[in-house]
Amino acid sequence: MVRLTGRRQKHVLDIHKAKEGQELIVGLENDKIGTGRIKHLTNRTLEMDIFLTKNPPPKNNIRLILALPRPPVLKRSLQAAVSLGIKEIFLIQTNRVEKSFWQSTALDKKSLYEQCVLGLEQSGDTIFPQIIMKKRFKPFVEDELPEVIKGSKAFVAHPDAKTPCPAIINKAVTIIIGPEGGFIPYEIEKLCAVGVKPVHFGDRILKVETALIAILSRFYK
Amino acid sequence: MVRLTGRRQKHVLDIHKAKEGQELIVGLENDKIGTGRIKHLTNRTLEMDIFLTKNPPPKNNIRLILALPRPPVLKRSLQAAVSLGIKEIFLIQTNRVEKSFWQSTALDKKSLYEQCVLGLEQSGDTIFPQIIMKKRFKPFVEDELPEVIKGSKAFVAHPDAKTPCPAIINKAVTIIIGPEGGFIPYEIEKLCAVGVKPVHFGDRILKVETALIAILSRFYK
Repeated sequence: MVRLTGRRQKHVLDIHKAKEGQELIVGLENDKIGTGRIKHLTNRTLEMDIFLTKNPPPKNNIRLILALPRPPVLKRSLQAAVSLGIKEIFLIQTNRVEKSFWQSTALDKKSLYEQCVLGLEQSGDTIFPQIIMKKRFKPFVEDELPEVIKGSKAFVAHPDAKTPCPAIINKAVTIIIGPEGGFIPYEIEKLCAVGVKPVHFGDRILKVETALIAILSRFYK
Repeated sequence: MVRLTGRRQKHVLDIHKAKEGQELIVGLENDKIGTGRIKHLTNRTLEMDIFLTKNPPPKNNIRLILALPRPPVLKRSLQAAVSLGIKEIFLIQTNRVEKSFWQSTALDKKSLYEQCVLGLEQSGDTIFPQIIMKKRFKPFVEDELPEVIKGSKAFVAHPDAKTPCPAIINKAVTIIIGPEGGFIPYEIEKLCAVGVKPVHFGDRILKVETALIAILSRFYK
């Protein structure tokens, strides 16, 4: 039996409007999912018998490399990427990333954990993605990226690219998404030099979180 | 010469951090786009010479039919759909749409206009989409939908569908997206009866606005 209070108890009461006896989908962090049967639900606590019988949905074979966005955008982007089952997320510095973003509390362990939990809950998943931060563009791209993208097709979203973003399902891919204002030409050159292919996503400028979901969707199973 | 105050002047000052002499992308409602050269920028007003020389980006040949979401989700969904260049948006009643949503101020002309403006600005577009409301599911689907979807491939996102969501670029499509909790079986039957094809989008439950962007992206040019 588990007893919940706070945000999750409130969600069951206010959003699910659940009653005693009702079954909910539940999951245990980095473990199985299943059902929870409500034994007792009050304005303050929720008690459930839980039965963890199934594996969470498989992750998509997608690695996301994202230029660190401003904090509120980071939060929404992380939630969305996690709900889409991205298994590995790099946050990187680029020329047009404001240095101050790295000081944001949105990068605290607790905040990253919270955004991941919200994305996992949304999508019925329990397995936390890896989140990796790289504060220096050049050494990351030159010394580490070749190893990171090995075995995957790697694309960078770039408005000036000649090739449109493809739709490739079920293959290992690495998707690189720049900051507001995009990558500078030097950065695109550096990425190309290690085998990353620039692709464009139409002639509309999209919000980072919209572009992120739209592009990931092209590789989503 | 144009003079702007308020939100747009503030955006140019705080986000673009623009200087006098700098050029910005500008557009006129339902008209051309071009550049605006800043003549004068203070804490209160922005004066620009504008040159409207280009057509806005073409719309995607996508019609969206969306079960009316709760008001904050409606706002985000509209902005995203408009920024993605959707030309026609139906908001419809379904069994799992709370009736009270129709009373929301988010459906006021002024609010719909504001969300559209934000989506258009984001994507450098000026042409407002059509927004059409249908408060009764059965008469809409039986009597109007066949005519509405004529000449397009029509898909409804449905977790139980056998077919995965395809990726079809550059064809006329109609995308139907249900409410939180999905369509009821009767509604899916009704949609199928007029030629709409159910497709699924993986085994993860996504937020309405995430699903919307992800699915539209499969048909985005």
